[in-house]
Amino acid sequence: MLKLVLLRHGESIWNQENRFTGWTDVDLSEEGLRQAWHAGDVLRQHGYMFDIGFTSVLKRSIKTMHLTLEAMDLLWIPVQKSWRLNERFYGALQGLNKADTIAQYGTEQVQRWRRDPHELPPPITPDDPRYPGHDARYRHLTARELPLTENLSQTITRALPFWTETIVPALRSHQKVLVCAHGNSLRALVQYIDHLSDAEVAELDIPTGTPLVLELDDDLNRLNQYYLEPPTQPGPG
Amino acid sequence: MLKLVLLRHGESIWNQENRFTGWTDVDLSEEGLRQAWHAGDVLRQHGYMFDIGFTSVLKRSIKTMHLTLEAMDLLWIPVQKSWRLNERFYGALQGLNKADTIAQYGTEQVQRWRRDPHELPPPITPDDPRYPGHDARYRHLTARELPLTENLSQTITRALPFWTETIVPALRSHQKVLVCAHGNSLRALVQYIDHLSDAEVAELDIPTGTPLVLELDDDLNRLNQYYLEPPTQPGPG
Repeated sequence: MLKLVLLRHGESIWNQENRFTGWTDVDLSEEGLRQAWHAGDVLRQHGYMFDIGFTSVLKRSIKTMHLTLEAMDLLWIPVQKSWRLNERFYGALQGLNKADTIAQYGTEQVQRWRRDPHELPPPITPDDPRYPGHDARYRHLTARELPLTENLSQTITRALPFWTETIVPALRSHQKVLVCAHGNSLRALVQYIDHLSDAEVAELDIPTGTPLVLELDDDLNRLNQYYLEPPTQPGPG
Repeated sequence: MLKLVLLRHGESIWNQENRFTGWTDVDLSEEGLRQAWHAGDVLRQHGYMFDIGFTSVLKRSIKTMHLTLEAMDLLWIPVQKSWRLNERFYGALQGLNKADTIAQYGTEQVQRWRRDPHELPPPITPDDPRYPGHDARYRHLTARELPLTENLSQTITRALPFWTETIVPALRSHQKVLVCAHGNSLRALVQYIDHLSDAEVAELDIPTGTPLVLELDDDLNRLNQYYLEPPTQPGPG
């Protein structure tokens, strides 16, 4: 049996401010830092260890990885970063307050942008400061790979090559794998592993800072899944 | 011209306690954390950026790398860790207080252990809890590679393959490289690059938390070297 642990980064500053983040490189909040350490603590208490970690190129996810590994005393394992594990690119919504966006576009439209796998948020243009082509970390991407907006279906499409070409070979060579990433890039992986329909993935919501364990057979079919909670302390007597 | 930046990790808890560390995985002190962030701040103020980072598998060096990159807003670059960049393995001296060691063995002997590139500290045995063969991070090493003690000359010998096979190709492909490591593994690299004699390397001491810039020609001969200090603030008027 192969085991894969998925971890959604802790709370970011923009989670607190209720703003659309996407590829904006916002930091973890104090609560997010605490959640990341706590996740590592819970994994350690359950006896987990990892051979390799995979994360995005966004600091809220990278710092969650680092703090989780530090709490497990595993800072020394290799960690590989890829833009393919980034959060969904939210186009012109990035930076907007979610309440303001609802006031402007209506609840129904905002709900569609957030939940319908095929609904595209309004795109940015390449002269927008939010265009990833302006950022050194994306300089190796082709023009086709640089997003102007992204629906969930496209997030899945660009995350998948990293799954099949990098994570799967690590699992098949019996390495214990931790993936630390974002709400939508993790939903993308789970949709693919579990063959979820669009309706099912629309309902899927992975909580922040809570390790999700997937037990897989050798053909990478899911046998079991569960969230890790802190172990129950033995009571007095 | 190629540029390489070497950074010795910030102060560790055992630096404070004046104990021999070697491969013992001691953490940074509060001052060490501050130094690491400061190093990144200085590099950023001087306009440095990096394409890739190399560090050891010891947390004082890894955390220095992470904090330096965070201060530069470069957490997203790839970082590769190798045991070959570890501190010199100090054998049975690891964990001992330096003052106690001097009281027991005399100043002269301790000075020879610290400075003579061929002097071996007393070895441990494989049943010693300090033997790296007990530590999962060294499970891929051969018995020959697992040290019982190490002189500086041996530290250089085991660090060199990482230099020639990994760091040099990165430099030759014009990547900007940051190496974050330890007093003796950095001395090893500098001795090799600068063709220093044993007497010269015995005198070489790289200060903690201060970026050392090496400018190299295309054949990796050193053209120039200097430490980076905080830029002078412009005075009033």
